[in-house]
Amino acid sequence: MSYSEISGGVTAAQDFLAGSAYCGIKASNADRPDIALIQSVRESVAAATFTTNKVKAAPVRVSMMHLRGGDVRAILANAGNANACTGLLGIENAKRMAEAAGQALGLKARQVMVCSTGRIGVQLPIEKMEGTIAALPAGLAKDGSNRAAQAIMTSDTFAKEMAVEVEIDGKAVRIGGVAKGAGMIDPNMATMLCFITTDAVIDKKQLQCALSVSVEQSFNRITVDGDMSTNDTVIMLANGAAGNKPLRHGRPGFKVFQRALDHVTKHLARMIVEDGEGVTKFVEVHVNGAATLSDARRAAEAVANSTLTKCAWFGGDPNWGRIMDALGYSGAKLREEMIDIFYDGIIAVRGGMPSKTPMAKLQEVVANKRFTVTIDLHLGKADYTVFTTDLSTDYVRLNMGE
Amino acid sequence: MSYSEISGGVTAAQDFLAGSAYCGIKASNADRPDIALIQSVRESVAAATFTTNKVKAAPVRVSMMHLRGGDVRAILANAGNANACTGLLGIENAKRMAEAAGQALGLKARQVMVCSTGRIGVQLPIEKMEGTIAALPAGLAKDGSNRAAQAIMTSDTFAKEMAVEVEIDGKAVRIGGVAKGAGMIDPNMATMLCFITTDAVIDKKQLQCALSVSVEQSFNRITVDGDMSTNDTVIMLANGAAGNKPLRHGRPGFKVFQRALDHVTKHLARMIVEDGEGVTKFVEVHVNGAATLSDARRAAEAVANSTLTKCAWFGGDPNWGRIMDALGYSGAKLREEMIDIFYDGIIAVRGGMPSKTPMAKLQEVVANKRFTVTIDLHLGKADYTVFTTDLSTDYVRLNMGE
Repeated sequence: MSYSEISGGVTAAQDFLAGSAYCGIKASNADRPDIALIQSVRESVAAATFTTNKVKAAPVRVSMMHLRGGDVRAILANAGNANACTGLLGIENAKRMAEAAGQALGLKARQVMVCSTGRIGVQLPIEKMEGTIAALPAGLAKDGSNRAAQAIMTSDTFAKEMAVEVEIDGKAVRIGGVAKGAGMIDPNMATMLCFITTDAVIDKKQLQCALSVSVEQSFNRITVDGDMSTNDTVIMLANGAAGNKPLRHGRPGFKVFQRALDHVTKHLARMIVEDGEGVTKFVEVHVNGAATLSDARRAAEAVANSTLTKCAWFGGDPNWGRIMDALGYSGAKLREEMIDIFYDGIIAVRGGMPSKTPMAKLQEVVANKRFTVTIDLHLGKADYTVFTTDLSTDYVRLNMGE
Repeated sequence: MSYSEISGGVTAAQDFLAGSAYCGIKASNADRPDIALIQSVRESVAAATFTTNKVKAAPVRVSMMHLRGGDVRAILANAGNANACTGLLGIENAKRMAEAAGQALGLKARQVMVCSTGRIGVQLPIEKMEGTIAALPAGLAKDGSNRAAQAIMTSDTFAKEMAVEVEIDGKAVRIGGVAKGAGMIDPNMATMLCFITTDAVIDKKQLQCALSVSVEQSFNRITVDGDMSTNDTVIMLANGAAGNKPLRHGRPGFKVFQRALDHVTKHLARMIVEDGEGVTKFVEVHVNGAATLSDARRAAEAVANSTLTKCAWFGGDPNWGRIMDALGYSGAKLREEMIDIFYDGIIAVRGGMPSKTPMAKLQEVVANKRFTVTIDLHLGKADYTVFTTDLSTDYVRLNMGE
């Protein structure tokens, strides 16, 4: 029932290749590769989750269409230009990206999912990109995961890769991925991209089910500034190379697969939060005892996004008053006199009032780079967790624009 | 139909007195007065609006009860201690504040509304306060508005007063008020307090109607960090000294009165935003052409509270991409390709795409200390305006805690 972490990232699974190329789209760091390609060398199915933002980048709209087809085989992504707010020409260019990759790999355009991240409101240098994409397949390799992870970085300070191996009915199944940071610190747009591959035998519908559940537990739980990108995308490919019995929800193997996938997505999600520029503290906000799940979620997200609370954390101030305040306006059902608040398990608020804990003990906790805030509403059994950060002067500086 | 600004603030209206006293509650600036008292020397009625935060400070709970009585005559407020998250003892102490003021003025406790602002989770030095309150009436004066305005300041850098005079069926009617800033910069809690008086003849029900409408157009439109205080309170007293015909909704005089009141509340609301420490820019966000009022409101508030957008403004960056992003996740009904965005009337986005306007022209606008962002969704007739600010490194520093 247990999985083990392995190396290899998005190419850890059998019969997946990855690579990158330099096209000069990243104005800022012209020396770094800016196009990544991930391919399954055998038939595969895809699942994906996309931003719920109503303003969607062109590649998101195109990939949503391509997902409908049953036989996606590759993922093409560029950094440096988000191809968002680019109108019909932007859609046309996103399609040309898929066509170029399809031609180069001998696939149909609809078998390629496309992603972009970076500046918005600027058209892609599509001709230049088509030339670069044509040459990409030659560089695809079994050990190409790190190159792909590097290519999709914008303001990220390190490449994000993760892979696990798990045994399912006697067969070794691998799940691995790469991700780029929520560029809440990117001067132009906050974008999170994650590409996951697996050699498990699983059909498209079951894969979508597993991915949706996993994203809800991971990428949907991270917040840095509450802003949501026009480009956020998570794509997963499964090519069945492992030869296990087809995974089906409800059967034992599925649980094992889900747990392993959750480990990959949670790990990548944490890396994204921890790598936020201007972030000095990583905070887990747990809400317990809520009347309903949506109450728990509202409460946790209000605290995790409270500007005042995040500023206090940056200053090492265990300001539980601001947490009480955020809970109060969260819209969650609560009774002030029943609220308990803990910092790393040390009680700060009991029954809605300050505990006897000396402030110095709470300050010790908030002085750490990582700590947990637990809120118990004592109204029910629902709980929810959000991974968040502090709000630092550097965050503001990094977001002041060019 | 027109009103004129006059001096006198909260005591500009006939038969109102105000004063302040020093009780040593403001630890930070021990030399400044920290208790304010406003009294109508004749019978008066009250109207009020309170924070919608579910975590309500003790004085808010007590004042809500006292408002039910028909004959409120005075407002007592202290700064330095919010009496929030203080449990039953806090409620008891808020009642004792009202009792002490009532005794000193020869009124019943329920004829006094009480307010507190400052540190939370700390019990009031109530005995000390009772002594100070007993001596307050002696200092009440016709010219006491500024002293009262000073006494309720926390991190405010200037006292906020405003008054107007308007003629209603041949009688001069005065409306005036004092306010303290949304302490989004206060290290402990963001609180907005506003006290308004008028000598108009108007009954309690009509007064509440006028005040509720006015607050919705002013204090409910300002945001600095999206956090909402446990203590926010607006109280208005009317004592009828002007001798006009009783004001009734639907009659001409009421419109005149409403317009004059709106001028007072809007002016005080702007002063609050502009006085926010760490605020370098004052921004009006107008959303036009929304399908419904709630769509317009959602859209305007999402933009006005977008951390990324506010950071960009601080840096003088007309980052319309972040505005598009915020509109997209606002939940407002919209069609990306129909959105226009203007900075001080200069078009930045046309039909969801960058306009031809050179960036330099937009940067000139955002370089100003005040500018307007207008968003037209082109879907309907509803519009909404929010007054907001940038998000500066100083804001973070000031909110890092003690």
